[in-house]
Amino acid sequence: MATISAPATAPAPGEDCEQLHKAFSGWGTNEGSIISILAHRTASQRRLIREVYSQTYGEDLLKSLDKELTRDFEKAVLTWTLVPAERDASLAGEAIKRWGPANRVLIEIACTRSPEEQLAARRAYHDRFKRSLEEDVAAHTSDHFRKLLVPLISAFRYDGPEVNMTLAKSEAKILHEKIAEKAYSDDEVIRILSSRSKAQLFATLNHYNNEFGNPINKDLKSDPKDEFLSALRAVVKCITAPEIYFEKVIRLAINKMGTEEGALTRVITTRAEVDLKVIKEQYYKRNSVQLEHAIAKDTRGDYEDFLLALLGGPDA
Amino acid sequence: MATISAPATAPAPGEDCEQLHKAFSGWGTNEGSIISILAHRTASQRRLIREVYSQTYGEDLLKSLDKELTRDFEKAVLTWTLVPAERDASLAGEAIKRWGPANRVLIEIACTRSPEEQLAARRAYHDRFKRSLEEDVAAHTSDHFRKLLVPLISAFRYDGPEVNMTLAKSEAKILHEKIAEKAYSDDEVIRILSSRSKAQLFATLNHYNNEFGNPINKDLKSDPKDEFLSALRAVVKCITAPEIYFEKVIRLAINKMGTEEGALTRVITTRAEVDLKVIKEQYYKRNSVQLEHAIAKDTRGDYEDFLLALLGGPDA
Repeated sequence: MATISAPATAPAPGEDCEQLHKAFSGWGTNEGSIISILAHRTASQRRLIREVYSQTYGEDLLKSLDKELTRDFEKAVLTWTLVPAERDASLAGEAIKRWGPANRVLIEIACTRSPEEQLAARRAYHDRFKRSLEEDVAAHTSDHFRKLLVPLISAFRYDGPEVNMTLAKSEAKILHEKIAEKAYSDDEVIRILSSRSKAQLFATLNHYNNEFGNPINKDLKSDPKDEFLSALRAVVKCITAPEIYFEKVIRLAINKMGTEEGALTRVITTRAEVDLKVIKEQYYKRNSVQLEHAIAKDTRGDYEDFLLALLGGPDA
Repeated sequence: MATISAPATAPAPGEDCEQLHKAFSGWGTNEGSIISILAHRTASQRRLIREVYSQTYGEDLLKSLDKELTRDFEKAVLTWTLVPAERDASLAGEAIKRWGPANRVLIEIACTRSPEEQLAARRAYHDRFKRSLEEDVAAHTSDHFRKLLVPLISAFRYDGPEVNMTLAKSEAKILHEKIAEKAYSDDEVIRILSSRSKAQLFATLNHYNNEFGNPINKDLKSDPKDEFLSALRAVVKCITAPEIYFEKVIRLAINKMGTEEGALTRVITTRAEVDLKVIKEQYYKRNSVQLEHAIAKDTRGDYEDFLLALLGGPDA
């Protein structure tokens, strides 16, 4: 359910590189040409383009883009051009550097990627920062946030469909008891949310809802201002309904006085090849406005054009 | 520094399979033939043999071995025949099922394998048990042992040589303070030991020794009967000097009233293709007896022959 449109037969990487190099040359930069190429290539095509570009022109494509572009457009093109694992490593690195309790990037990476994708991001983090993702998370966070984030980011969840219903029932009960005691950062709560497979957690959280009368996230909203509770709700949402989670991130980013471009860019670039189509549908359902229209209204110029290209045009 | 001797050009896997199949046939089993083949094949050769055997005879080689062999010899051959990742998954599964504070298998797997090997073991655990290693560890351990083992087993440490000396100094100081307060399971102690790269930990622990006058393991011996302290010492030993750690496991296994075959088999089979040569040297240094002689004295029959074959004969 990706949104980007890549041509059935893409031009040879060498040709794309030549066009990109031309777009950087002479007076001014041809942003339109950059968008028409990069926004319409898949991750593996972009990886190839970057390799060929570096062989041909002796400079990393990202470096050239960095020199030629500015501001939100630059940030969006650079983030997009990275392949997913490198992009996640880069986003995680930024999140850790400026970490605060309201930051949800680490939770997104830990809970909306597949186990193998999360692992690839950890490997890319090694390559880029010469440290492990978990050691940096552990060193830059503290208390109950550290207790939650380190196991989340270190997990390599089982990815199969098997479900143990007895376990689902017993762990739904544990979650309910701990939440009732307001022991939100209890070892058991964190163990269950951070280690169980997604299929197993679905069963546990469904049983929670059936047995105790509320979806768990309702019970986790006793204090709407508590950032840790909000983080736990984000974990649950990212695992059980990522499209609803991401729709909300986009909605809040757009509705802010002055759009919050960082979050908007992050969600569009990380989801365009995954589930942005469903997120768009969810956005329309929730806001009665096409996401493209909302973004067109709130952004401008090349940045706007680029995001709209990644969004693939309004749904019919 | 492996000890096993594989022929320069091994027979074709099909030929090995035929010999093995012949060894299982008729009255009685030809154990000598099994040893002469399997104890002299590398992990990748054994993997191939297993594949070809299953294609040719419609049965997993492990199943055939399981039917034909018994007791310690069976256990040793089965453990050995698995490739390292499967073997670690299997050992971890057993350790979790019968977990107790004195069990060191999970620490061995987390601290003596390379980060990629540890990851391969986690992947093999998924395949075998349809759950993740960390979820089973978390569900079957508790308190400070859980706090230590889950991050250890979930870590994907950075594996490069880079060392941050400022960090080494500050973290040596943290370790020393926490140990002085007897806060052995403090978050910071566990964070440092479970997340830092081996190179970084070497620097930190060297600085600890230089600055505070004792190797950390001496300071971690305030109560020799405390199993958690002993687990922490095992973590440090496995990371900094695995050959010393493994020599001791072997020594204690042999010196027990009645050899403890489980530990002996585990160390010999898991290290024969890694560093058993150094462990043998360490054993001789520590006991003034060749490890082969000690094992020959304490074990018998096919089990003895098999271990000695893996040990590759006494050093010249």
